[in-house]
Amino acid sequence: MTDRYERVALIGLGLIASSMAWAMRRGNVADTIVGFAPSEETRKVAGELGFLDHVAASATEAVRDADLVVLCVPVGVMGAVAREIAPALKPGATVSDVGSVKQAVIAAVAPELPANVHFIPAHPLAGTEQSGPRSGFAELFDDRWCLLVPTERTDPGQVDRLARFWQALGSRTDQMTADHHDLVLAVTSHAPHLIAYTMVGVADDLRRVTDSEVVNYSAAGFRDFTRIAASDPTMWRDVFLSNKDATLEILGRFTEELFALQRAIRSGDGDLLFEYFSRTREIRRGIIDAGQDTDAPNFGRTK
Amino acid sequence: MTDRYERVALIGLGLIASSMAWAMRRGNVADTIVGFAPSEETRKVAGELGFLDHVAASATEAVRDADLVVLCVPVGVMGAVAREIAPALKPGATVSDVGSVKQAVIAAVAPELPANVHFIPAHPLAGTEQSGPRSGFAELFDDRWCLLVPTERTDPGQVDRLARFWQALGSRTDQMTADHHDLVLAVTSHAPHLIAYTMVGVADDLRRVTDSEVVNYSAAGFRDFTRIAASDPTMWRDVFLSNKDATLEILGRFTEELFALQRAIRSGDGDLLFEYFSRTREIRRGIIDAGQDTDAPNFGRTK
Repeated sequence: MTDRYERVALIGLGLIASSMAWAMRRGNVADTIVGFAPSEETRKVAGELGFLDHVAASATEAVRDADLVVLCVPVGVMGAVAREIAPALKPGATVSDVGSVKQAVIAAVAPELPANVHFIPAHPLAGTEQSGPRSGFAELFDDRWCLLVPTERTDPGQVDRLARFWQALGSRTDQMTADHHDLVLAVTSHAPHLIAYTMVGVADDLRRVTDSEVVNYSAAGFRDFTRIAASDPTMWRDVFLSNKDATLEILGRFTEELFALQRAIRSGDGDLLFEYFSRTREIRRGIIDAGQDTDAPNFGRTK
Repeated sequence: MTDRYERVALIGLGLIASSMAWAMRRGNVADTIVGFAPSEETRKVAGELGFLDHVAASATEAVRDADLVVLCVPVGVMGAVAREIAPALKPGATVSDVGSVKQAVIAAVAPELPANVHFIPAHPLAGTEQSGPRSGFAELFDDRWCLLVPTERTDPGQVDRLARFWQALGSRTDQMTADHHDLVLAVTSHAPHLIAYTMVGVADDLRRVTDSEVVNYSAAGFRDFTRIAASDPTMWRDVFLSNKDATLEILGRFTEELFALQRAIRSGDGDLLFEYFSRTREIRRGIIDAGQDTDAPNFGRTK
């Protein structure tokens, strides 16, 4: 078994796929990169940007002869795409994805695939608030984690091979089960996104504070929320609908805790607030020490 | 009336005061800058860093002969500091502050001051998650807004003078009433901070997701929250306790809205989610267009 994939097919050509292509080129990770996106405009832009060796006219054409096929479409359409490409997959190929939820993707994709391909769900924990083929860049995955979620029928050798592929794109890799993945991501990503969307929506809705006040005076904290709340709406709609249980569980815990802090504010319990706020500082320290964020003030913003 | 302050006294020597001193030096805005902090360690560090012309041994000594006195201490101790310095204030001096809430500061400070000084509350909307005298830098206020909140007894000429002072430090300035200020800040700052503190606390508390998972996999969104939740605990305890009503009002609206989105997730209402998430993107665009944040992905983080 070779250590690299000769031919890689990317289905969907947004932020993640275009970044994967640029990172593959940087690391000389594949001989040929082909890709397809349902939108004609996206295919045209991808062709102009030149991160693919070939822009295919259909998903079926893209996956033909590919050793690795990566589904980079919104979680809600993964099943349909898998059904479409299944007949054209090369025996022995690996099929993976980059979806932000794993149980729902496995449930939708696994039944569609033939038994002679290796299905290895994965999730690179990297992204920005931008989307589309123009937003990709080779460094997106550097030092970020890519979580592999092998299913029972997965060949461990092929899992290692895919892990090495992601490492060659700059990532660190880890493995976990699909249900644990979905819980961890509900905490570190899905609940925070919904909360940020909510807070930005509330600010926009208030009639007693003008939009220009919200915008001009955002540097006092709010602007950090708006970055997250500018993420791709389609992707996030699908994430919440397909990681419903874990997200609602974490939001329930969040609401409980928020009520406890609101009660402390109402009753004037300064000690509780002070202790709480001191504890959360430590988590930030840990993230910086783990190389997952900058310690420069305001993220090192230059404005 | 002269257009600058010959002698400026800073009471409290943390992030804001040290940044003001550096910005005053950069702009040659004052002849002499004196300062005092209750902590001996802070005074020692301030002396070593050299952003003051003189480190005073007491607040009373610092304010003597000063034309402008700026209270840069936590909101909860503003009243006590005002009481202490009142007898030493020069007649005709301006007393201002940088507190994040205004009604409570006015209620605590105004009754303590003699009638022959000008009290002009103010709030520069600038900061980082860091604190203490070492965290200051001259550019902190550049293009940020400083809100002046004149009281009824304030001389308009002196308000203009203080506005020009803040403009010389790099700020844009605006005026509003104290109660409107407190509502605007509850939206753009206080509620977002409490929400970020809460989410980080929840992540830390969960027994089913390890701290190392929270830390390593934070790049998926959570790390933005931890920056805000690393802010100074004393300052933020005081903010919430002294802007109780407006903060609780906004948190109430937030919770309503969060419940509506949770219901949409539970019932699978993808259209509602998609429309909501599309709308919040616009706010981000407005903030970037207004020069209040960078449009670089991930805030232009280099890691």
